[in-house]
Amino acid sequence: MTSHPRAAIILAAGQGTRMKSPVPKVLHPVGHRAMLDHAIDAAEALGCERIVVVVGAHSPEVRAHVVDRLGEESIAVQDPPLGTGHAVRAAEAVLGDFVGQVVVTYGDVPLLRAADIEAVFEAHDGVTVIGFEAADPGAYGRLVMEGDTLTAITEAKEASAEVLALKTCNSGVMAAPVGLLFELLAEVTNENAKGEFYLTDVVELARKRGAPTRAVMASEDSVMGVNAQAELATAEALFQKVQRETFLAAGVTMSAPETVHFAWDTRVGAGTVIEPFVVFGPGATVAERARIRSFSHIEGATIATGAEVGPYARLRPGADLGEGVRVGNFVEVKNVRMETGAKANHLSYLGDGSVGVGANIGAGTIFCNYDGFNKVRTEVEAGAFVGSNSALVAPVTIGAGAVIGSGSVITEDVPADAMALGRGRQVNMPGAGAAFRERAKAIKAAKSK
Amino acid sequence: MTSHPRAAIILAAGQGTRMKSPVPKVLHPVGHRAMLDHAIDAAEALGCERIVVVVGAHSPEVRAHVVDRLGEESIAVQDPPLGTGHAVRAAEAVLGDFVGQVVVTYGDVPLLRAADIEAVFEAHDGVTVIGFEAADPGAYGRLVMEGDTLTAITEAKEASAEVLALKTCNSGVMAAPVGLLFELLAEVTNENAKGEFYLTDVVELARKRGAPTRAVMASEDSVMGVNAQAELATAEALFQKVQRETFLAAGVTMSAPETVHFAWDTRVGAGTVIEPFVVFGPGATVAERARIRSFSHIEGATIATGAEVGPYARLRPGADLGEGVRVGNFVEVKNVRMETGAKANHLSYLGDGSVGVGANIGAGTIFCNYDGFNKVRTEVEAGAFVGSNSALVAPVTIGAGAVIGSGSVITEDVPADAMALGRGRQVNMPGAGAAFRERAKAIKAAKSK
Amino acid sequence: MTSHPRAAIILAAGQGTRMKSPVPKVLHPVGHRAMLDHAIDAAEALGCERIVVVVGAHSPEVRAHVVDRLGEESIAVQDPPLGTGHAVRAAEAVLGDFVGQVVVTYGDVPLLRAADIEAVFEAHDGVTVIGFEAADPGAYGRLVMEGDTLTAITEAKEASAEVLALKTCNSGVMAAPVGLLFELLAEVTNENAKGEFYLTDVVELARKRGAPTRAVMASEDSVMGVNAQAELATAEALFQKVQRETFLAAGVTMSAPETVHFAWDTRVGAGTVIEPFVVFGPGATVAERARIRSFSHIEGATIATGAEVGPYARLRPGADLGEGVRVGNFVEVKNVRMETGAKANHLSYLGDGSVGVGANIGAGTIFCNYDGFNKVRTEVEAGAFVGSNSALVAPVTIGAGAVIGSGSVITEDVPADAMALGRGRQVNMPGAGAAFRERAKAIKAAKSK
Repeated sequence: MTSHPRAAIILAAGQGTRMKSPVPKVLHPVGHRAMLDHAIDAAEALGCERIVVVVGAHSPEVRAHVVDRLGEESIAVQDPPLGTGHAVRAAEAVLGDFVGQVVVTYGDVPLLRAADIEAVFEAHDGVTVIGFEAADPGAYGRLVMEGDTLTAITEAKEASAEVLALKTCNSGVMAAPVGLLFELLAEVTNENAKGEFYLTDVVELARKRGAPTRAVMASEDSVMGVNAQAELATAEALFQKVQRETFLAAGVTMSAPETVHFAWDTRVGAGTVIEPFVVFGPGATVAERARIRSFSHIEGATIATGAEVGPYARLRPGADLGEGVRVGNFVEVKNVRMETGAKANHLSYLGDGSVGVGANIGAGTIFCNYDGFNKVRTEVEAGAFVGSNSALVAPVTIGAGAVIGSGSVITEDVPADAMALGRGRQVNMPGAGAAFRERAKAIKAAKSK
Repeated sequence: MTSHPRAAIILAAGQGTRMKSPVPKVLHPVGHRAMLDHAIDAAEALGCERIVVVVGAHSPEVRAHVVDRLGEESIAVQDPPLGTGHAVRAAEAVLGDFVGQVVVTYGDVPLLRAADIEAVFEAHDGVTVIGFEAADPGAYGRLVMEGDTLTAITEAKEASAEVLALKTCNSGVMAAPVGLLFELLAEVTNENAKGEFYLTDVVELARKRGAPTRAVMASEDSVMGVNAQAELATAEALFQKVQRETFLAAGVTMSAPETVHFAWDTRVGAGTVIEPFVVFGPGATVAERARIRSFSHIEGATIATGAEVGPYARLRPGADLGEGVRVGNFVEVKNVRMETGAKANHLSYLGDGSVGVGANIGAGTIFCNYDGFNKVRTEVEAGAFVGSNSALVAPVTIGAGAVIGSGSVITEDVPADAMALGRGRQVNMPGAGAAFRERAKAIKAAKSK
Repeated sequence: MTSHPRAAIILAAGQGTRMKSPVPKVLHPVGHRAMLDHAIDAAEALGCERIVVVVGAHSPEVRAHVVDRLGEESIAVQDPPLGTGHAVRAAEAVLGDFVGQVVVTYGDVPLLRAADIEAVFEAHDGVTVIGFEAADPGAYGRLVMEGDTLTAITEAKEASAEVLALKTCNSGVMAAPVGLLFELLAEVTNENAKGEFYLTDVVELARKRGAPTRAVMASEDSVMGVNAQAELATAEALFQKVQRETFLAAGVTMSAPETVHFAWDTRVGAGTVIEPFVVFGPGATVAERARIRSFSHIEGATIATGAEVGPYARLRPGADLGEGVRVGNFVEVKNVRMETGAKANHLSYLGDGSVGVGANIGAGTIFCNYDGFNKVRTEVEAGAFVGSNSALVAPVTIGAGAVIGSGSVITEDVPADAMALGRGRQVNMPGAGAAFRERAKAIKAAKSK
């Protein structure tokens, strides 16, 4: 716990109509994590002991998402939406008797990290705003500074040419002692063109009563807000850029890093090679000195040292690959532990089961794990050899060192060191191939008449 | 029909030798549509009642392509090639008694849209040229303007320093009343270094006789011409950029839009999510709230609301996916209707047939639809369950609610609610697996001696 | 052999700790070829009759790599590392009685080509340095020139403001007559902050004795050095850019060239189309007028005129595709010759064997080529038709014109024109499907209690 208690109010009540999406805006993901969760992550990383999310009445999904993560006690409802100042006031009752510094952040600002806003907690006696240098300030509100003091936030359309020339803009993120914040907000009026209560008005009100007003700077990328699909894509691109640079700096080799897409929680060890065109979904962990070949798709999977997957490997949740394991092309692995040195190199589906040390799964093998209602397990023990194009009908165990003949359907357990066959016997019919071809040709000819 | 009749002459006689391709230049595609067709599309969108394509004698493929789309009456032949003015004159006889405004466009300018050139039809009494502001004017001809009047088109190599400094360049697109155009062209000579008849000469000739000469502006991208493979790739990139921006604005979610490639006629509904690395071929329609996962390839397919395909789904022409259908990894679907809620999640080939409501196609299922000469159909009725690694040998019908045992070869119809098996019986041979391994080892040892 | 004998000393003794990789820095690949090999290639292309690679004592892999390519006589060891001048001196004994011009290059400068440095061999009487115009000179040493004469190389931290303003920087590549080079190096001291012997000091020493000192310029890209993973990725991007431009100029059609990744030795003929998202590993050769569809991965393979592969084709070493061959989606081919017109369109593994003229490999076919220890061959002769989902258990031959029934396991040779079946007989059990479904439902219900 910090010496000065901290709290965060996260505004997430906007409708996001410009997204034109059935999904509420703040639940759209960046790096496979909802933008709102990025905002909550930052608040948690700052050590906020109270986090209040202000949601709109129109969006039960957002409410449910917050309740699921933080509980009912973190919900404030803004209804109807009457501006940012109004939204923050909705959190007052929820914060209750909290004493300390409060920061106001946003559910649609996904790239803001704790380090970007830590500085707003340095002062404890006034209003601190996060500003940024805008490459193209356009319609952003400008921060008018005198030395370290923020003297005004001026909306672009009300600004003089001199103020418009300023590149220091308002991010909307603001902090103040909880008491001061709500006292000032109580004074904010909606006497403006839109009839809304603006959070930014507290700066002028603070100055009127002689409270300090400051600005601290963050990068423009870190405070970017998302209001449209194109902006969501831009946020994702910025997020991926940071991930790629981070992994390169940590010793991951990527010949085309711009073609590798990471999730927010991907972990990759030094000396691992990731080839072009790889997608990580959430929950992937890759150890050191592994190799992820092109066109692989990995989520919820663990890959140990020296393992090699792909090209075209699809690892799904619960795929757990031991050291030196090899998963090759057009192979899907889900909820299967593969022990050291096990191999499944071609065209297979391994779902729900295990593959023992050094076992070999032949091309075209299917773990038949589903009867339309239930998932059942296939256990392939150490050193077993499953011949190509076999169907292992779960629940079934292939004993250690057993051999399954190619093209078999295996429905019963196979003892260790046994061989099992489950296939028809070959019959050659001399001349019948030629006859078949003649018939097929004749059918074609008849059709084309 | 417009009040002033419109016609278009599309120049498509260039040999395109810089492409170094066996395909005629104007038939190279942008967004999976021949550049020439983009030019014809624009002419049609402008309401041109006559469209003449000037082709070269060297290219029967271009001629056939035009005849196929517009008929013989739209063909003019330029033979031999003696310059752009000469090419336009080749269209004179074909236009016959047409009276109205004619625009000259190009088969190798694929990004020009009707909206870009609509303005050339505003005046009906002189020559109107489409100009553009060039970022790097280089060797382009410059448009010399006095107010709204085009006073000259000056070739770069003949231009003064003052004229060279102009950034307003000639796109080559030009319009005039049909009578005036051909009168002026009749006066154009080939007294120049290359001995060619230049279309641009009509501007000076018009001014000499006191006819108005004007320029209207289009964007540089819209008038870019394609003469080499690298330029074709640039045109494609510009085309894709517009497609991506259009779909984002319409509410399609793409985390990495730069990795999604659309065809000219792709349709995608709002709320649909397209993951990184997706390719659309021609004829794809995706409804709202669907999900297209990474590494999917979709052409000629229809995907209904709430369906999910991929990763690694390959939908080919005639794949018709109903609501909530799921097509998973390493699955190819061609000419198959899948009804609501049907699933084919892994490693399957579904070609020529149907899959009923809620039916489940197990991993590794093959519709055996081809005997070397004929394509035949597999019908899987509602609620059927096809076990993994099954081969359904068409023509065959799997009745509603039927169950196919894993690893079966099905050659005869299966009645509703029946179970069908078609596989060998499993035999376990104790110790034979170990013996097999010893033999294989021994062979290896013998080889390495 | 050139009239003046040439030699190269390639410095490759750096530890590359900033790479944070278990692989020695100079063995990291660019375009699937070790950076060190690019440097050796350039030396060979220059006609150097002697090439000495200076390796560190810490890196047996680098030593082994050089010995493997050039032999023991090309190895010099620098131990311990005491600077670039010291490294070059390590090569003196190895060069022995060589007389001629020596160029010093670097194992971590992968984009330097022979043409970039040919000019250093023009003079034979002094020291010639390769310089480059740096976009951001930063910490690079500056080349101080008087006309054509290089008067000094000044380290950035010791440079005056005037010298710092120079954009002409030192690449580190240098050439001199062998005798002069080692005489000068013998005079270099380590009386500097780092206590190292710097190669650059020879310029000042040469001037002191009145020997000519010159600089010739190369592009900044060509002399970029790689010290970190991000720089390796940048080098790869520059390499790929050149490859893409080269292939476009040669008449290869790529709609999205930035998504095609080539190896250093990829060859592609004019008129071939490469769709988005294709990866070439080493050793791929594609003839003219072929088509490589999206998501294909090709290494060590040969593709003849008019063949079409992909989407999702994976060609591995020894895949040898004849004219008009078709390899389709989710098909892997390794060490198999496919004769003219042969097809394998879906979900197959073809490993170790041959496919004859016009033969058709059905969907889901597996060449079972591995018994856990040995690889054995499958021969499919001309015109054979292998039905879907078949397993061909090698060693086995399918005779010309033979037909294999779908779902067969083939363990014995099939004569020409015969038909072979190897599968169970279908049994339909009326009502058993419904009963199965009821049981499965009951199990699910019991579990969920």
